[in-house]
Amino acid sequence: MPFFSLMLLFLPVLRAMKWLILIIPMSAVVGSLCALFLAALEAATHYRVAHPAILFLLPFAGVVTASIYFWFGGESERGNNLILEQIQKPYSGVPLRMAPLVLVSTVISHLFGASVGREGTAVQIGGSIASGFANLFKLSQEATRVLLISGIAAGFGAVFGTPVAGAIFGLEVIAIGKVDYLALVPALLASLIADWVCHAWGIHHTLYTVLFSGYSLRDEPPFHTNLILLAKVALCGVCFGLCSLVFSESTHRLGKFFKTICPKAWLRPVIGGTLTIIFVYLLDTRDYLGLGITAPEPNGASILNFFGPQSYPYSALIKILFTIVALASEFKGGEVTPLFFIGAALGNILSVWLNAPMDLLAAIGFMAVFAGASNTPIACTMMGIELFGAQNTVYLATGCFIAYLCSGHTGIYLSQQIFRSKI
Amino acid sequence: MPFFSLMLLFLPVLRAMKWLILIIPMSAVVGSLCALFLAALEAATHYRVAHPAILFLLPFAGVVTASIYFWFGGESERGNNLILEQIQKPYSGVPLRMAPLVLVSTVISHLFGASVGREGTAVQIGGSIASGFANLFKLSQEATRVLLISGIAAGFGAVFGTPVAGAIFGLEVIAIGKVDYLALVPALLASLIADWVCHAWGIHHTLYTVLFSGYSLRDEPPFHTNLILLAKVALCGVCFGLCSLVFSESTHRLGKFFKTICPKAWLRPVIGGTLTIIFVYLLDTRDYLGLGITAPEPNGASILNFFGPQSYPYSALIKILFTIVALASEFKGGEVTPLFFIGAALGNILSVWLNAPMDLLAAIGFMAVFAGASNTPIACTMMGIELFGAQNTVYLATGCFIAYLCSGHTGIYLSQQIFRSKI
Repeated sequence: MPFFSLMLLFLPVLRAMKWLILIIPMSAVVGSLCALFLAALEAATHYRVAHPAILFLLPFAGVVTASIYFWFGGESERGNNLILEQIQKPYSGVPLRMAPLVLVSTVISHLFGASVGREGTAVQIGGSIASGFANLFKLSQEATRVLLISGIAAGFGAVFGTPVAGAIFGLEVIAIGKVDYLALVPALLASLIADWVCHAWGIHHTLYTVLFSGYSLRDEPPFHTNLILLAKVALCGVCFGLCSLVFSESTHRLGKFFKTICPKAWLRPVIGGTLTIIFVYLLDTRDYLGLGITAPEPNGASILNFFGPQSYPYSALIKILFTIVALASEFKGGEVTPLFFIGAALGNILSVWLNAPMDLLAAIGFMAVFAGASNTPIACTMMGIELFGAQNTVYLATGCFIAYLCSGHTGIYLSQQIFRSKI
Repeated sequence: MPFFSLMLLFLPVLRAMKWLILIIPMSAVVGSLCALFLAALEAATHYRVAHPAILFLLPFAGVVTASIYFWFGGESERGNNLILEQIQKPYSGVPLRMAPLVLVSTVISHLFGASVGREGTAVQIGGSIASGFANLFKLSQEATRVLLISGIAAGFGAVFGTPVAGAIFGLEVIAIGKVDYLALVPALLASLIADWVCHAWGIHHTLYTVLFSGYSLRDEPPFHTNLILLAKVALCGVCFGLCSLVFSESTHRLGKFFKTICPKAWLRPVIGGTLTIIFVYLLDTRDYLGLGITAPEPNGASILNFFGPQSYPYSALIKILFTIVALASEFKGGEVTPLFFIGAALGNILSVWLNAPMDLLAAIGFMAVFAGASNTPIACTMMGIELFGAQNTVYLATGCFIAYLCSGHTGIYLSQQIFRSKI
């Protein structure tokens, strides 16, 4: 049967074509929405910095977004956790309206100064668009799972400009304790395409500079790993992991507490918004509003400034305060950029105490606190390499892996399954 | 109960101490043995190049190593597969004599010119020493598994000078389709220490140079990913994967065939040795003997020369021939350095056909053929980053992930479990 064997040969090719046809447009949509999101975020941040008084509207802005979700949100409210559950066991899918809802509400959060991030938004855009494509093409359960993972990868890869980390993040975030290759190549393809499309819209990602080089690829010294520095990094890894634990636990507990004292969902952002305003005037700083990649003043607390040379002793603690209040009172947005901020700030001050290179520890903290909170140590190591280069891979991996070990089993995503207990 | 809660606090610290006390000496031993092995290998290669006539003794050398294994080897004969099985379900452990046996026999293979590698040897040294420590300290099954994975990581990390890739390799090689975090931090610690110790003995690893830079970290161009080049790399990834498939299948089938026509184990290397000699004189080249990192003549076929500028159209095919004959006739040694050679050679010639940067495709082939044959795409991406730098991460990951997808389910390690089917 020559026809039959010819078919057999073409079967993998046909299957590959099917995935290309599904994933390329899906990722292009996700990449474009991420580009729109990042552009809107930048405009919102500029506007907020130029008009400081807008902060006073933060409580009302929160009421608006909470009300939008209350009336139109439905299942969207559950955000990243809903997407994780749909991957673990697809049932009703992720509603398509999640994408516009989360995009608009996150931009509102940032415009009025809530301390939230972007990755949750990007992941929800990715998951919702992917679910839309899965419904449109009436995909099987298994294929839907693959497409949802690819959607997460696309959102993550595009929003941070780190496509390989995005792909691994999509595979790693589903469960604690493993990377599952259910969607290895689809996730990479989705992430690459979405990142490319996002760049094609003219979006530029922040460049971070780590001058310290633990390992020069060109003229290798006899000892490329410094054991003393490695021990310091390992110790910092423990601190980063405990910091993730504190962050995740506080966010969940404060959220429950707010729910107890204020059962009306639309009213909760008023508490968070008011507390944020009080913190701003009590501490006399606006550095902790929004993403915090750059600060309004040249020497203010910001992710870029944590790389040195100045030290910021209380920044990590203050940012934790701002962020858990914003997240627990249900402002929309991600957790990750604040985690980058907290980690880099913690690395900054640990480098002073431990007499270690500041830019190195800021970079490791940047990745490791997130690795601990999201339980994705390999994706974070890869992201560190994509952001900072390969010369400190050994220290980055040490920081991320140990932070993962020390961050407990309750991460920022409550719907992560536990495949393997950490200890 | 203040004493009890103090104990609870110290429990993780005590557990961490236990692992440090176990893993540091174990990795130091593995790293030292790897250093001895690499030094002996270099001396053996120099001697062989200086004394070409030694090749005629290859069949007898094979008889000697086969006889040593026949009389003293016991279970050691089963090599990497035995270690994988002991990790999946520890029962009798890995015999300690595996380490000296495989070290000596691999050096003999290389001294007389068999086309074999080093990773199998390093992994077996690591696994056997780890099993020895597990027996010495009477560890539980679970702890034994962790230590065996760490042993593999230590051997791999030290022999190639790529500690983070070594750690991930140890976790990824056990089963097809996942990275299991059973031993995330112990494997990293073991790999780092072993690599450090190996360097401390004065061992230097080969430096590879990839000048092509798809992505500059310092001055990011608006499009850091070139879609045409990405498509070419994806196509190459398919070729690399099929090459892995051909290599693994041919080695296993030729091995079975040799067993059928020659039931006496000690006699089989005579066939392989004789065929190797015939190939050398038929093709009038000695470039395919041994590791092949450098060639006896300046422009000979070698891994370093495949990075450019000259092209080597038949080198991949010839090296496959030499290597499957050596491995199928049971010469001792690894598969990986020959796979690096085959992959780099295939990348070299594909770069001419596809008009793509030669050093980039040689580097991707180097990693991707191994990724396909060992089913470890993430470890190989990381290894590529550790060897060549971060500037081509996107292309490296694409090559390795697609090669993994296309290499079938029979890799070079027959005892790998299948956790998740590839398609």
